[in-house]
Amino acid sequence: MTYKLVLLRHGESEWNAKNLFTGWVDVPLSEKGTEEAKRGGTLLTEAGVTPDVVHTSLLRRAITTANLALDAADRHWIPVKRSWRLNERHYGALQGKNKKETLAEFGEEQFMTWRRSYDVPPPEIELGSEYSQDADPRYEGAPVVRTEALKNVLDRALPYWESEIVPDLKAGRTVLVAAHGNSLRALVKHLDGVSDEAIAGLNIPTGIPLVYDLDESLNPVTPGGLYLDPEAAKDAIAAVANQGR
Amino acid sequence: MTYKLVLLRHGESEWNAKNLFTGWVDVPLSEKGTEEAKRGGTLLTEAGVTPDVVHTSLLRRAITTANLALDAADRHWIPVKRSWRLNERHYGALQGKNKKETLAEFGEEQFMTWRRSYDVPPPEIELGSEYSQDADPRYEGAPVVRTEALKNVLDRALPYWESEIVPDLKAGRTVLVAAHGNSLRALVKHLDGVSDEAIAGLNIPTGIPLVYDLDESLNPVTPGGLYLDPEAAKDAIAAVANQGR
Repeated sequence: MTYKLVLLRHGESEWNAKNLFTGWVDVPLSEKGTEEAKRGGTLLTEAGVTPDVVHTSLLRRAITTANLALDAADRHWIPVKRSWRLNERHYGALQGKNKKETLAEFGEEQFMTWRRSYDVPPPEIELGSEYSQDADPRYEGAPVVRTEALKNVLDRALPYWESEIVPDLKAGRTVLVAAHGNSLRALVKHLDGVSDEAIAGLNIPTGIPLVYDLDESLNPVTPGGLYLDPEAAKDAIAAVANQGR
Repeated sequence: MTYKLVLLRHGESEWNAKNLFTGWVDVPLSEKGTEEAKRGGTLLTEAGVTPDVVHTSLLRRAITTANLALDAADRHWIPVKRSWRLNERHYGALQGKNKKETLAEFGEEQFMTWRRSYDVPPPEIELGSEYSQDADPRYEGAPVVRTEALKNVLDRALPYWESEIVPDLKAGRTVLVAAHGNSLRALVKHLDGVSDEAIAGLNIPTGIPLVYDLDESLNPVTPGGLYLDPEAAKDAIAAVANQGR
């Protein structure tokens, strides 16, 4: 008896394309991202992977990716659950800033610390400012988030994993999680027991389903899971690592 | 204290455009239907109507309509519930047939009986045939449906109304129901107490939100509700009545 989990990072967004820090800013997919999402669904169909339930963040780029991929896979009708706990990492005061300009302004070391350290968050965003979500109705009842390191993402994603995703897996459902680079890295860190240091080097490509078969203790049968298009995943992982350059 | 319910009929589908009986066949929206869905969302925004939860059928044309309208209204992140009980009427053996040819083959009286009588269903569809859904995994656990009159739609939609939609309304949520000509006619018949005879003359246009304020007994404050674009609704209702001609 194994459980099947599918992780899908949203396709390119309009701000990925512009090289801006996005975080919780709710930007749409780019044209390319739309195509990536559909292709993600086609890859599911070709591999015979049929999600029974989908979990998404509250952000448009993950929601649209799930909608388009599931429609392409003829699984648009499955139950949907959403939570802010699957959101991208909140990038604090960096939200809305250009990555290249941030690199030039703050230097390589500070830039890489904010991007890749496990537990050093960027400066907090100013409440009420253009790219803050403190007044957004979708987060009513959730704690106000002003910045996050990957560790904070893990801390808020794990309770959702335990309370909402694990029960679906244990009920025998194939679970699709459509989310973001950092919320998926947090789940992968948990699943594969990646160290705080090693997680810095782990990138997840956009639009390529990553399939985990999990044993009865929810440990991956194949560490790291299996990408449905391994060649494309390898190329994309290299490209992500070079962002901001 | 009033409750707010919004009914939205999906935009034009590829088979509406081809004048085929669709029923439970899962066809996508046409280009025009895609635009109608987005405009439905814009109308919600302009009217300041903000759905807190959406209910859809299990059919792509209603699901996509909800996705596009909610995205346009910046409410793509709200909770989603789906049920076969909100599906279009099952058109039995007529599914996949051309409306004009059916009219020519069976004559005006039989044609109008199948289309508009309250309780006379079309002939049953053959199980296992091209346009039957008896083996479709999305209906696992639901009764096998082979044909329906509007009465049958009402009989299977009302339990869902009572058990899933009414509790959302009573919790103070603005509820969007994205569904079909006949499942929405069934709900309207129930809400407005339309007679079995009068319901034959009631058409619901595509893509134009129909807003009901309901009193504490869930009776419409304004009988028939209010379309967000009354002029367009009037024109569209006239056009629906002429289908198959």
